[in-house]
Amino acid sequence: MKLASFKAGSRTSYGAVTDGGIINLGRKLTQYPTLLDLFRAQALAQARAAATGRPDYQIKDVEMLPPILAPEKNICVGINYPDRSAEYKDGRDAPKYPNLFCRFPSSLVGADQPIVRPKVSDKFDYEGEIVLVIGKEGRHVARETALAMIGGFTLGNEGSVRDWLRHGSLNVTQGKNFDKSGSLGPWIVTTDEVDPAKPLHLTTRVNGEVRQEDSTDRLTWGFAWLINYISTFATLKPGDLIWTGTPTGAGVHRNPSVWLKPGDVVEVAVPPIGVLRNTVVDEV
Amino acid sequence: MKLASFKAGSRTSYGAVTDGGIINLGRKLTQYPTLLDLFRAQALAQARAAATGRPDYQIKDVEMLPPILAPEKNICVGINYPDRSAEYKDGRDAPKYPNLFCRFPSSLVGADQPIVRPKVSDKFDYEGEIVLVIGKEGRHVARETALAMIGGFTLGNEGSVRDWLRHGSLNVTQGKNFDKSGSLGPWIVTTDEVDPAKPLHLTTRVNGEVRQEDSTDRLTWGFAWLINYISTFATLKPGDLIWTGTPTGAGVHRNPSVWLKPGDVVEVAVPPIGVLRNTVVDEV
Repeated sequence: MKLASFKAGSRTSYGAVTDGGIINLGRKLTQYPTLLDLFRAQALAQARAAATGRPDYQIKDVEMLPPILAPEKNICVGINYPDRSAEYKDGRDAPKYPNLFCRFPSSLVGADQPIVRPKVSDKFDYEGEIVLVIGKEGRHVARETALAMIGGFTLGNEGSVRDWLRHGSLNVTQGKNFDKSGSLGPWIVTTDEVDPAKPLHLTTRVNGEVRQEDSTDRLTWGFAWLINYISTFATLKPGDLIWTGTPTGAGVHRNPSVWLKPGDVVEVAVPPIGVLRNTVVDEV
Repeated sequence: MKLASFKAGSRTSYGAVTDGGIINLGRKLTQYPTLLDLFRAQALAQARAAATGRPDYQIKDVEMLPPILAPEKNICVGINYPDRSAEYKDGRDAPKYPNLFCRFPSSLVGADQPIVRPKVSDKFDYEGEIVLVIGKEGRHVARETALAMIGGFTLGNEGSVRDWLRHGSLNVTQGKNFDKSGSLGPWIVTTDEVDPAKPLHLTTRVNGEVRQEDSTDRLTWGFAWLINYISTFATLKPGDLIWTGTPTGAGVHRNPSVWLKPGDVVEVAVPPIGVLRNTVVDEV
């Protein structure tokens, strides 16, 4: 099942995405006002039962939103694909643990919505990522049972403002949290359609050109490792998001660096999940 | 006006704190289910008008909660008082910009609730802080008008697990986000009672002994500077929280380091705001 959040006119809702369009589940399951509420109630079976009949909307007629609009946790993993650590050329030993940081909901738009290059920097960059949507609550989750915590998958463009990433010596918060600098979507694909135990192949394209390409079987810290590790300090809850890192090939690491500019189209593609597409605009 | 969130029996609500107890505003202003909703609606005048009559509860009879339970942004400022940078003895030049990081709501409890030393570390430490509660929405807020963005003040204990702070080379997320490792409260004092332009004096005590003491007129990056800077990248919204940093004197920097242990009582005190008190317990 594919689950999306969207805005139709002035109304925010969520629904099941089928080949014919979106079935408005928010109207049918009024006890769950948002997709996050549906996840928190672990009511995916109810959603599946309600996802029948004719679609209410065509995707082109709605504004797609980040599937989870206000997650309690939006946890992003830093360098996690091979060779990316080498890209940084900082002479550090291979780290034992990942860097983790967070993004605020205000930094994200949905699929097909413009992402915004800010006024204060021209060093705007993409980072294609696979995002885990937690489906159950758990603390101290063993690695062996961790994949069962995943409720679904979505895609992210972890848009970054590279010079502001370096404002803090010990944190990257600023450069990761410019308003509407990243995106999440287009929908959540539940684990009946994507097996968390099988590798996923991720590609990021800019204006059709492949810039990033890698497979999750090469992750330094795989999905189960991350869930075990994060749940050691924080209780994971349904609707929490874990961004699993980006492959080599971001614009900053090209020689010379290439930055996103207005009109550029960034696509993050993972076959069984979908394509997250956004066009760059300038901050007004 | 002092505004608190609390739980009475199984019910979560919020209210005005008076000398006689708490007036249950959540019951009177049902259009605003939470204190965050009240702030988002900028309805402090309505709250003030409704804060009359006999108190509904004594503070001792309710469970105090973090005043804002699920802020969109929980932004924490790293080293911000003088001498603290020197405490780190890392030979870095004085930084031009602050470190910023975030805490998830799951890492915080309210006043008089136990804070939890985790199983995986004995390096549990306190950091007393003044926390700004944003009262208006704004982006690119000029420094000259920034103080008008503050809707109120509360206190925080930015409880930290020191060895886990260093797991990431570029982030401190893990060590700052252990479940219930920090606290927020006891209430929000609105700016009619605390003038944002006047210095505030902060003291942190452990078992009655003063461990941290400093004044906000000595901040490297003052309230107005922070609001201007953060709003350069992110739209600040009512109910967003900015933790403004902690003075020298955390346990890690004592010689030898002193860690919190079960039974220790941590108090963060700022006279016109109040005292935030929590007792340490071990994770069960």
